[in-house]
Amino acid sequence: MLIVGELINSSREAVRRAIEGRDSAAIQRLALSQAAAGADYIDINCGTRIEDEEETMQWLVQCIQEVCDAPLCIDSPAPGALAAGLEAAQRRDKPLMINSITAEQMRYAAVLPLVRKYKAKVIALLMDDRGMPETAADRIRIADRLIGDLIADGIAPGDIYIDPLVKPISTGSSFGREVLEAVRYISERYPEVHKICGLSNISFGLPNRKILNRIFMIQAMAAGMDAYILDPTDRAMMGLFYGSRALLGYDPYCAGYLKAHRSGLYD
Amino acid sequence: MLIVGELINSSREAVRRAIEGRDSAAIQRLALSQAAAGADYIDINCGTRIEDEEETMQWLVQCIQEVCDAPLCIDSPAPGALAAGLEAAQRRDKPLMINSITAEQMRYAAVLPLVRKYKAKVIALLMDDRGMPETAADRIRIADRLIGDLIADGIAPGDIYIDPLVKPISTGSSFGREVLEAVRYISERYPEVHKICGLSNISFGLPNRKILNRIFMIQAMAAGMDAYILDPTDRAMMGLFYGSRALLGYDPYCAGYLKAHRSGLYD
Repeated sequence: MLIVGELINSSREAVRRAIEGRDSAAIQRLALSQAAAGADYIDINCGTRIEDEEETMQWLVQCIQEVCDAPLCIDSPAPGALAAGLEAAQRRDKPLMINSITAEQMRYAAVLPLVRKYKAKVIALLMDDRGMPETAADRIRIADRLIGDLIADGIAPGDIYIDPLVKPISTGSSFGREVLEAVRYISERYPEVHKICGLSNISFGLPNRKILNRIFMIQAMAAGMDAYILDPTDRAMMGLFYGSRALLGYDPYCAGYLKAHRSGLYD
Repeated sequence: MLIVGELINSSREAVRRAIEGRDSAAIQRLALSQAAAGADYIDINCGTRIEDEEETMQWLVQCIQEVCDAPLCIDSPAPGALAAGLEAAQRRDKPLMINSITAEQMRYAAVLPLVRKYKAKVIALLMDDRGMPETAADRIRIADRLIGDLIADGIAPGDIYIDPLVKPISTGSSFGREVLEAVRYISERYPEVHKICGLSNISFGLPNRKILNRIFMIQAMAAGMDAYILDPTDRAMMGLFYGSRALLGYDPYCAGYLKAHRSGLYD
């Protein structure tokens, strides 16, 4: 089970302001609070900074590394920004994660060399040149090809984190179930490959979004999801995360659950 | 999806006192509040009244029927108490549920005639003369035999509600997973047969029991569970119930979820 902390994203107002004012203390606080809350990786995304994404990515990486030991997840659709972030991050003796590669031909060709060069773990989105997947069958078709290609290109199965791409159930009643089916398939077919997702898309357009995101985390874990991109400082979400692990038998003697309980993760 | 309201149980202090004082208003309030909260059946259990279980069962049935239209679930390990409750309840033009039959030879032989006589739905516990199940394999073995026997004895598959019997994860880390595996098997092998369970056993001996019970409800539904014995007046639980249904694609246009949200089921 792996948690990628999602808070350092320039689409969030507080992060946008911190970047504009080069307020490194604000960014550092966000990194440290996520690491303290149990994030295994800190995601860094400044994709809204189209004019200076590479420079901003490097500044963010450096400013986080000054104070925080947690491994970093360099997050951009742009290979140039990934390269800039990885270059800035590689000075440390820490694993790296790349977010993300896809089965789109050009993006695959541009990102693969970075995955190899930095021996990074890589989040692989189930989309190809035909676009975003809708059904479980779409996802399974892309997963078979993308996992096969990555392994053929020398990436270890255990370094691959498949993101099935979650779409809002407000736009299609079956969109949650399609993801869960795909996750079950991947778990059975590729036991060493990891499955990761963000949670907030699922609830877009509906009330009580936090509740739906939490339920979907639990459902996805029951289907085999073993990594999440989320806000680790959301104590209720993290309490449910540890409870789900225990109930699924991943937590001998419920030790992790009991520790989470003692640290008050159930506000 | 079916909800059996669990609150009328003589092991609960308030119900024990109401029975002792023959306080029919208190019992009636419990029935009406559960029906209003969405219970499809009202469970009636006075198993702690060993000295007068049959008479108490009849009194409870009559007193609920005076005010409440909801179908009843007559709940006892004792065939005599089941017969007494069913006899009192049969005057109404409502379906009945029996809780429960098992694969124990004597209990099966004693309860089957009641299921047939009252054309009742029946909760079938996965235990036999060897005792309580521990693993998924135990449950699957008993389920194959019990479902086979019930169908051979003329019970419609859609009237069978298999209860896999939930044991606390505090006594075995894998006890949740074993139940989920059995539920998945039964769902695939017997698509018309229902699966039901109580939730509170799973968390016995651990802190934050309500949280674990809610997570397990969500996990079980993702595995195919389609009926629950629970407290329907627990608004947070019911909110998660409607959210889970929507996320699993059982709720076209999220209509049930939105209705639950409007009625405030997310305290």
